[in-house]
Parts: sequence; C-alpha cells; structure tokens
Amino acid sequence: MTVSKESQARLGEVAARVAGHVEQAMRLDIAEALQNCDPLLAEVLEYAIFGGGKRIRPLLTVLSSTICGRRDDQLYLLAAALEYLHVATLIHDDVIDHARTRRGRESVRNKYGMAVAILAGDWLHARSMHLIGQLTGPDGLSVFCRATGAMVDGEYLQIRHAGNLALTEEKYFAIIERKTASLIASTCMLGAMFAGGTSAQQQALGRYGQKVGVAFQVVDDLLDYLGNQKETGKKVGNDFLEGKITLPLIAALEKANEEEHKELHSLLTGDRSDVQSCERLRVLLDRLGGFRFARDRAESLVQEAVASLEMFITGDEQESYQLLVAIAGYILARKQ
Amino acid sequence: MTVSKESQARLGEVAARVAGHVEQAMRLDIAEALQNCDPLLAEVLEYAIFGGGKRIRPLLTVLSSTICGRRDDQLYLLAAALEYLHVATLIHDDVIDHARTRRGRESVRNKYGMAVAILAGDWLHARSMHLIGQLTGPDGLSVFCRATGAMVDGEYLQIRHAGNLALTEEKYFAIIERKTASLIASTCMLGAMFAGGTSAQQQALGRYGQKVGVAFQVVDDLLDYLGNQKETGKKVGNDFLEGKITLPLIAALEKANEEEHKELHSLLTGDRSDVQSCERLRVLLDRLGGFRFARDRAESLVQEAVASLEMFITGDEQESYQLLVAIAGYILARKQ
Repeated sequence: MTVSKESQARLGEVAARVAGHVEQAMRLDIAEALQNCDPLLAEVLEYAIFGGGKRIRPLLTVLSSTICGRRDDQLYLLAAALEYLHVATLIHDDVIDHARTRRGRESVRNKYGMAVAILAGDWLHARSMHLIGQLTGPDGLSVFCRATGAMVDGEYLQIRHAGNLALTEEKYFAIIERKTASLIASTCMLGAMFAGGTSAQQQALGRYGQKVGVAFQVVDDLLDYLGNQKETGKKVGNDFLEGKITLPLIAALEKANEEEHKELHSLLTGDRSDVQSCERLRVLLDRLGGFRFARDRAESLVQEAVASLEMFITGDEQESYQLLVAIAGYILARKQ
Repeated sequence: MTVSKESQARLGEVAARVAGHVEQAMRLDIAEALQNCDPLLAEVLEYAIFGGGKRIRPLLTVLSSTICGRRDDQLYLLAAALEYLHVATLIHDDVIDHARTRRGRESVRNKYGMAVAILAGDWLHARSMHLIGQLTGPDGLSVFCRATGAMVDGEYLQIRHAGNLALTEEKYFAIIERKTASLIASTCMLGAMFAGGTSAQQQALGRYGQKVGVAFQVVDDLLDYLGNQKETGKKVGNDFLEGKITLPLIAALEKANEEEHKELHSLLTGDRSDVQSCERLRVLLDRLGGFRFARDRAESLVQEAVASLEMFITGDEQESYQLLVAIAGYILARKQ
C-alpha cells in the first residue's frame, strides 16, 4: 500500500495543526491542575510532555471523533488525556529499562531520578483517567482502563518470554496486541464514543486502531534492526541486546536449517553486547527472509486496518477518512 | 482522648468483618478482571493484595457510606477500589525506597523485580480508577484523582525538602496533608458520595478523614523513633537514616539552645547509619520535648476529627458514628 505524496503532505499539515491544538489543551489543563502545587512537579511535567513526540495517538482520537461528526475544543482535551497516558507509560518504561535518553534528550529518570519519574508517571496516569471519566463517562473510562490493564498484561507476557527462543508467532502477536495495540484501539474507540458514534462506528474504529497498533509495533521491531539511529533516536539492536524475541527472528528461526539454527542460538545466548554479533544476526535474518516476512505482515495489517473503515468510504467526512488511511500508510513508511 | 475497651473491642470485630467482605470483593473483582490474562499478573496481584494490611481505608469508606445510610455489596467493591490504590502506592513506594521488605515479607520489588512492581502498581491504579468511575461517576472520580494528584505533589515537596533542617512546622504539615491525608479524606468523602449523602455530610466526612489522615502520619513519624520493630514491622530510625525531617525534630530544633542546636546539626549531617547517633538523637528529642509536642498535636487533630462529625451525633447511625470516633482514638493508641 502506498499513499500519494499529496495525501502525505496533507497529513503532515493536519498532524501539525492538531498537535498544536492538543499541546495548547495540555498547557491549559496542566496549569489548571497544578494550581498551588510544588514547582518541581510543574517543571518535570513540562519537561516530560513537551519534549517532542509525534502525537500520533491524539491525532487518531481527533480523527476518530471527527469522522463520527464531532470536533470541538473538548475533543482536544480528550486527545490530551490520551497523550498523557502515553507519556506516563514512556516515563515508567524508561525507569524499567534504565534508559538514559528519550527522543535525543535525557530521560526523566536520568534527569530527575527514579522517585520523581515514577511519581510523575502516576500523576499523569491519574490526570488522564480523570479527564477521560469527565469527557466520556463511565463507559469510556471502562474501555480505557481495560486497555491500560491489557498493556500491563502484555508487558508481563513479554517479561515472562524474554530470551525464550521458542516464542511462537502467535505469542508474539498476543504480546504486541496487548502491549501496544490495545491502547491505540481504545484511542480510536474513545474518539468515536466521545462523538456519540454508533456502536458499529465505534467497533470499526476500534478495529482500525487495533490493526494499526499491531502494524506499528511490527515496524518498530523492524526498525530496531534496520533503523538509522540518527532517525529513530534509539540505539539499533536494542531488542537483541535485551533478549527480546521479535518477528524477524521468529520467522528466521522457522526457516533456518540445522546449521543456521545453531548459529542463531549461539548468537542469542552468547555475548549480545558484541557489535559484531548483532551485525552477523542482521545478515542471517536478512538471508532467511525474516525482515521480508515482518514487512509483509505489517503490510497486510495495514490493509486490514484500512478495510475496517469501509463504512466511512461514502460518508460525509471524506477528509477524515483519507487521513486515517494516510496514517495507516505512514506506519509503513516511517523511519523513526 | 481515650476510647473505652468496649468500643475498641467492637471496632476490632467490625474491622475484621469488613476486611473479610472487602477481601472477598477484591478476589471476585480480580478474578473477573484477569480473565485470559498472564498468570504472572495474577500471582503478583495475589501476593501484593493479600499479604496482610490493616484495611483501614476500606473500613473508613464503608463507615462513611453507612453513616449516610447506604450499605450493600457494591459498597465493598468501592472500598476494594480504594484499597487497590493504597496497595499500588505501597508497591511504587517500595520501588522508590529500594525497600526489601513490607509487612514482614519480601516487597514486590524484591521478590519479582522492579519492572513487575512498577507495572503491577500501574495495573492496580487503573483498576481502581475504573471502579471508582463506575461506582461514583465523574464527580467521585474527580475527587479521587485530585487526591492522587495531591499525593504526588506531597511526595515532591518532601523530596525537595529532604535533609532541609530549616523545614518549618507549616511545611511539614503541608507535606503530610498532601502525601497522606488527602487520600484518606477522599476515601471518606467517596463513601459519603456513594451513599448519596448531602453536601454537608460529604464535607464533614472529608474533614474528618483529612484530620485523621494527618494525625495518622504524625503518629507514624513518632513510631519511626519510638516504635518497636517487632510491632511496626519497620526498622526504627528509618526517617533519620533517610534524612526525613519530621515533627519531633522540628519541635526540638525550635526549643534547642545553641549547644543542643549544634549537636542536632552534627548528628543529622554526620554518619546517620551509626546506631549510636540515632540513639543519641532520640535522647535529645525526648529531652527537648519533641515527642511530647508531636503527641499533643496528634491528640488535637484527633479531637478535631471527632468534632467534624458533630452532625452525626444525633443521627440514625449511632454505631457508625461510634466506630468512626473509635478509629480516631485507635490512631493514637496504635503501635504498628
């Protein structure tokens, strides 16, 4: 699936405009919430929230609501709430992974210490839930909390299977469906709920978000091997270093003959911090078609995502539809 | 203020009964929420939630609702939600403090590692919010999220003032009002809101919870110096070791002459892990009336808490009133 240059340019414009609105909503909301609070809290939140970020999740919320017929200032606040949760998970992830940097800057954990980082994540978590409860009621909150629960569940599944070379493709997808996709699905669904969309519309957008979320993670896992550190802002080969078993490797293990199997095993159980091991692994994965396999899967998922939006093809909100399709295409094209 | 033996015994009975109901509610809720989830998540939650604990917060919720005229099975679920949040904060606190033990057992962090601990706290946080949104609606959720926000704010204030010997009594109370009392206040207030209590009833119970919460922390800080490790399950002198400035010390510094001031300073800026330093500090604090001062403050706060309940003296729920009074008295009597 390819997206026309025109569509891409239009997506870029809209994304920037929405990001501006959402950032404005976050600034106002934080200022209101932090009245009489400790200045350190304000400083840390400012640092964590306004340090870049693609703002894809809030864009999905805005488009999912718009395609169901509602766009107003409150919508940007809902989108802000979803971005808060995303930022909270990044802050906690960086504590868990002992990450020193995030988006080319020091991580919150590194700059302010673990205690401040964990607490800042908790604050954003609470604020996010508060806004979602206000804006979408108990039903929306329920969708959202199920998704955050699933996220934790996916992380546990991943932790339990770290270094497990027998991880199946099925389990791999089970992990990323929970860890990454469930929250993106809820991001879309909440937009539809906020707009008062029909149940069918909510389901369609939730399915779109689910597929896009899984594709996003598959591409993320590909970029971990193939990305350019300058573009991704992340060290290449990080998953290999941490013993995370991802799709290119699973597919390669499936195809490997006895000798190749042995070599893959020895690379993965040996000194993974050795740069040459990572390079050698990449060569093997490429030769065994692991990257191609993952790429194909991502493409199918994106097609399925787009197909989920069928009911909107003839709707009133042509532009929102086109933009959601363009986002799905962008997932495949992204380099960071 | 002293509470009769009879009242104490009755409180013990009711507390045990309510704890049983709340634990049952937590078991059912967790089982429902964890359908198809990773078994590790179930194991960790079981370990974290059912490892003892006084269940004071859920008891306060139950009594605050009952005194406003409502008690049913749903109430125990609301109380469970408040206990979840409490457990979540303990799990995150133990990560932050690198605590190896909790209630005489290994901490979650120690037993399962930091990643699992942070994520378990996040899961409980989300589940708690979900239930509170369902049971008390957006208004209840708003009260609750403000309280959790205040808790983080109080922790930040405390972090910023760690080791600050010039900490004033006013700042000390500002810290513990946010860190400890705001959540206990919301625990009571949500009980009243759940029962459909009048605004005056909600305010009265919120004020009661606020005062009880502050008194609770003052006594906690006293027990840190004077408690018996076997009874409290915590190492005595921990606050001193961590450089936390609490009320006995603030009061003693206020009273100290030049020489005593010097000695206090040298103890606090010297090797705090020295057992003899802690013992010497205790002697000084006692001589300067620091413990007496903190004790008096706790007693006044408990009296204020009880006074907040005035409107319920002549109400229909005499027993709930008596039990809330007994809890306030228990705060002063507790040894753990």
